[in-house]
Amino acid sequence: MGMWWIAVVAILTHTASAAVREYNWEVEYKFRWPDCIEGMVMTVNDQFPGPTINAVAGDTIVVHLTNKLATEGLVIHWHGIRQLGSPWADGAAGVTQCAINPGETFTYNFTVDKPGTHFYHGHYGMQRSAGLYGSLIVDVAEGKREPLRYDGEFNLLLSDWWHESILSQELGLSSKPMRWIGEAQSILINGRGQFNCSIAAQFSNESSPSCKFKDGDQCAPQRLHVEPNKTYRIRLASTTALASLNLAVQGHKLVVVEADGNYITPFVTDDIDIYSGESYSVLLTTDQDPSQNYWISVGVRGRKPKTPPALTVLHYVTAPSSEPPTSPPLVTPQWNDFERSKNFSKKIFAAMGSPSPPPKFNKRLILLNTQNLIDGFTKWALNNVSLAVPGTPYLGSVKYKLKSGFNWKSPPKSFSMDYDIMNPPRFRNTTQGNGIYMFPFNVTVDVILQNANV
Amino acid sequence: MGMWWIAVVAILTHTASAAVREYNWEVEYKFRWPDCIEGMVMTVNDQFPGPTINAVAGDTIVVHLTNKLATEGLVIHWHGIRQLGSPWADGAAGVTQCAINPGETFTYNFTVDKPGTHFYHGHYGMQRSAGLYGSLIVDVAEGKREPLRYDGEFNLLLSDWWHESILSQELGLSSKPMRWIGEAQSILINGRGQFNCSIAAQFSNESSPSCKFKDGDQCAPQRLHVEPNKTYRIRLASTTALASLNLAVQGHKLVVVEADGNYITPFVTDDIDIYSGESYSVLLTTDQDPSQNYWISVGVRGRKPKTPPALTVLHYVTAPSSEPPTSPPLVTPQWNDFERSKNFSKKIFAAMGSPSPPPKFNKRLILLNTQNLIDGFTKWALNNVSLAVPGTPYLGSVKYKLKSGFNWKSPPKSFSMDYDIMNPPRFRNTTQGNGIYMFPFNVTVDVILQNANV
Repeated sequence: MGMWWIAVVAILTHTASAAVREYNWEVEYKFRWPDCIEGMVMTVNDQFPGPTINAVAGDTIVVHLTNKLATEGLVIHWHGIRQLGSPWADGAAGVTQCAINPGETFTYNFTVDKPGTHFYHGHYGMQRSAGLYGSLIVDVAEGKREPLRYDGEFNLLLSDWWHESILSQELGLSSKPMRWIGEAQSILINGRGQFNCSIAAQFSNESSPSCKFKDGDQCAPQRLHVEPNKTYRIRLASTTALASLNLAVQGHKLVVVEADGNYITPFVTDDIDIYSGESYSVLLTTDQDPSQNYWISVGVRGRKPKTPPALTVLHYVTAPSSEPPTSPPLVTPQWNDFERSKNFSKKIFAAMGSPSPPPKFNKRLILLNTQNLIDGFTKWALNNVSLAVPGTPYLGSVKYKLKSGFNWKSPPKSFSMDYDIMNPPRFRNTTQGNGIYMFPFNVTVDVILQNANV
Repeated sequence: MGMWWIAVVAILTHTASAAVREYNWEVEYKFRWPDCIEGMVMTVNDQFPGPTINAVAGDTIVVHLTNKLATEGLVIHWHGIRQLGSPWADGAAGVTQCAINPGETFTYNFTVDKPGTHFYHGHYGMQRSAGLYGSLIVDVAEGKREPLRYDGEFNLLLSDWWHESILSQELGLSSKPMRWIGEAQSILINGRGQFNCSIAAQFSNESSPSCKFKDGDQCAPQRLHVEPNKTYRIRLASTTALASLNLAVQGHKLVVVEADGNYITPFVTDDIDIYSGESYSVLLTTDQDPSQNYWISVGVRGRKPKTPPALTVLHYVTAPSSEPPTSPPLVTPQWNDFERSKNFSKKIFAAMGSPSPPPKFNKRLILLNTQNLIDGFTKWALNNVSLAVPGTPYLGSVKYKLKSGFNWKSPPKSFSMDYDIMNPPRFRNTTQGNGIYMFPFNVTVDVILQNANV
């Protein structure tokens, strides 16, 4: 009887410290108004963005994902999750699984092994651009110390939004010649933007009228309600298809403390660059005039912006609720101020005590990223090979040793060292392929990625 | 040696009389201009409508169908083909097969057992409305007598066309409340219509301008080039999603000789009704003034037409090629002249010598077709059950005796005889189901279908 008692205690302890969080999700299109213009949006359980998963490190996430689309397959990728021991749950169609067919349910089962700000998104066709995304927030495990101190937190998931349907966008991009989709119509903050009006129209020289929202308007911004003299953690993540972004909060410094799920050495900044797929946490202290409200601006960087900035408001609860800020929103840095971008990147260092990168490597890959033509179709290539995802997922072919699943020969491991990215060859012949780099277990690979897109 | 010789002759004879016609087809979206307005069209081998299959009775058709769509499944149904001994080739997603996934190839293999005018079309979601259709023409077997006499033939595949994408149409129709798609923007003849102009503008009081076509315009009508004093077989089929149609040829009588792949007792008519899924052959004799051209009009019936009629021209090669007809196109019969429709239907009798229907039946199904609400969603129902196609195709569940594939209990075999279709109950509760009617082999079933949609 003594032994039996010990076993029960052990199970209870385990349950308390690492929960299983189980969700039933249904994905379907709905007509929504993300930027005050109606469009087809991919929803999860009728929500856009999809439900936020809040977990703690060590938890097991179980998502039973049902495809309620009429004719399209579906997967969800858990961006930033390392999937240690759960490669089948990574959610990349053609790589780790077949797309889930309409009417079918697939169960994702994985552990979130460390704290961090993450998100999930569709990873089949352009379904991410249709709004199939949501946040995945992992807090420190119970009983472990959170190294950051803050009084409250907000979560801002940033995205870009087109009025053209994703199937039409995809057809244009894969047409010969490529038909460019153009810049996004709107930047969304938590799925909300304003295309045909502005919440800061009174400060603008543009002709955009002032937004008039009705109760429950899907495009009304979510304001951040804060108390004076507190510190807030603002979690940021960008699911954009195209736009690099910059976020600034009027009158407030930002202390960057987390990048892509890793604690970093904190640094102070006036504004923060955020590229597609990145996530950050910043700490903001409400140390400004508590009788005022303040703009939060999200502008486009890296491309000449034709998309207006997204705006919302940092609302001090001590300030008039209905009053907008009294001065114009901050203008985020010039799109082509690349020195500033580089300087920002150079400020990011791992937090003290973070594990060091391996001091030595066993293998090296040198990858050149180019945009090429194949028979008049525009394709991206790595070392002159453009990926054509095979019909059978790689992981299945490897697991079941299917010789015909893909080309088992390695693609080139480097490119010609006399390739001049400032003066690339005009007509560079590229081929399609689906080969993979294979390595023995437990080797360290040094990957150098050279972007030749100038 | 004598035996061997006989065997070779037998094989050669078989090959000559019943060919195997094999096709490799790739389906993908293309930007096209079906009615002079650009839209996304589903093409087969870059063609819209898809390639015409010309076969003779007894041929085996083998189509290797590759899905080149980005994210959507795909099937093709061979409308009018009896699929004797080849149920797996019928191409109804969820019934006889799973949809073919992107990147995959499925082979349809079936025999066309008797002559007739048929067509094929997508049978998954609303892909037929995206233009996934083409003609399947089966002529009499070599050495057999074609009972019809004609000097040439034409093939007119009729369809309706919306500018809204099929995914958006489908979402609207399945929304709560249902969002109606409205009437089609255009009627197409062999994939060609004119939305923003008219080829008969000079006769019209409408403001539509006269069409100006450039060489190779995808929306320019295909004119029918005929010689005087000949008889032509015009094959007609309708793939419309919504519109019932009527076709008339200015100044010419039509002799109806085939209906849905069956020879009928010929009858003369001024114009011909054709409903979705139907096919006909009519004989037209070019006995009119050979110095003139004549309009062919295809108008909407059964619904108040907001879609302009489709037009093309019967061009006598003896008439000026560039001259339009000198008088206005025929106006097809009033949309709501239901007596005329019924009279037309009553003229259709099987050709003499056709096999008679079975004189007796063993089982009877009485089906009432209603439009109902389920939780606010608009659904059609038969005997109060609305079909929800199961994830596993019926044929697979039956073949492999999968008890969980669908509900093996029979749906109701009749409806209440006091149901008044002229005064239907206001709130009729309907359920979804996927049960099937099962019968022993070789019984005759009498099916009575009552359409209660008034």
